[in-house]
Amino acid sequence: MEIQDIMKILEKDMKVAVISTVDENNQPHARHINIGVANEEGVFFMTSPKTNFYKQLQSNPKIAITGFLEEDYLIQVIRIEGKVRKLGKDKLQEVLSGNPYIEQVYPDEDERQNVQVFQLYEGEGFYHSLTQGHKYTFEIHA
Amino acid sequence: MEIQDIMKILEKDMKVAVISTVDENNQPHARHINIGVANEEGVFFMTSPKTNFYKQLQSNPKIAITGFLEEDYLIQVIRIEGKVRKLGKDKLQEVLSGNPYIEQVYPDEDERQNVQVFQLYEGEGFYHSLTQGHKYTFEIHA
Repeated sequence: MEIQDIMKILEKDMKVAVISTVDENNQPHARHINIGVANEEGVFFMTSPKTNFYKQLQSNPKIAITGFLEEDYLIQVIRIEGKVRKLGKDKLQEVLSGNPYIEQVYPDEDERQNVQVFQLYEGEGFYHSLTQGHKYTFEIHA
Repeated sequence: MEIQDIMKILEKDMKVAVISTVDENNQPHARHINIGVANEEGVFFMTSPKTNFYKQLQSNPKIAITGFLEEDYLIQVIRIEGKVRKLGKDKLQEVLSGNPYIEQVYPDEDERQNVQVFQLYEGEGFYHSLTQGHKYTFEIHA
């Protein structure tokens, strides 16, 4: 299984994953986040500068992404651990386009213009199909 | 909504949640874990001393628990952030009993006797029913 196949499962099938961060007191935090784009360049997601999530990413760029999907007999897990960087606005339209949750999460157009895109650009990934027993590891360097 | 109702959803309906930890380099890690018992005394789960999860809990007892359940139109999220402590063996039977995953995760009887039970005994919790818009916060002090 290639990295692009695994990223496609994360982006298209799972859609939502848990992103874990750490604050300045070494307390972990985690929340479900819509995955905007995931491919060989890494994982792209967004958040508003008003959130604790954003503050945690600014003080510690290390994150863990955990995705889970159970469909009939198939149970798939994706885990990625690595570092994020903040991208400029030019990536925003790509991440926003076709995102079914954006209007729910950011109903206000002004706020939508303020959200920042982050990219997990470096890290190690792990795919596990529990029922089939398949395991793959991969690396991201973008 | 009372704390025991929320914990029941975590234990009985969600069954599995993501537990996030931090290692000594401030890198977050997260994995899906079967929730053994959840009630007003906190959240009880287990892991083997052989795991990185166990090592991370020993070096930093702060964790975040994230549960998610989508059933028909109802989407529920539970988030708890706080600290764990390791319990003695006496809690093990209670956590093991009725746990449908224990034989899959620890097929070896000897290994099953070595797993350690941890309790999130102090922390802050948050329940959110996305579709209904209900939000509740609660505290754990056990």
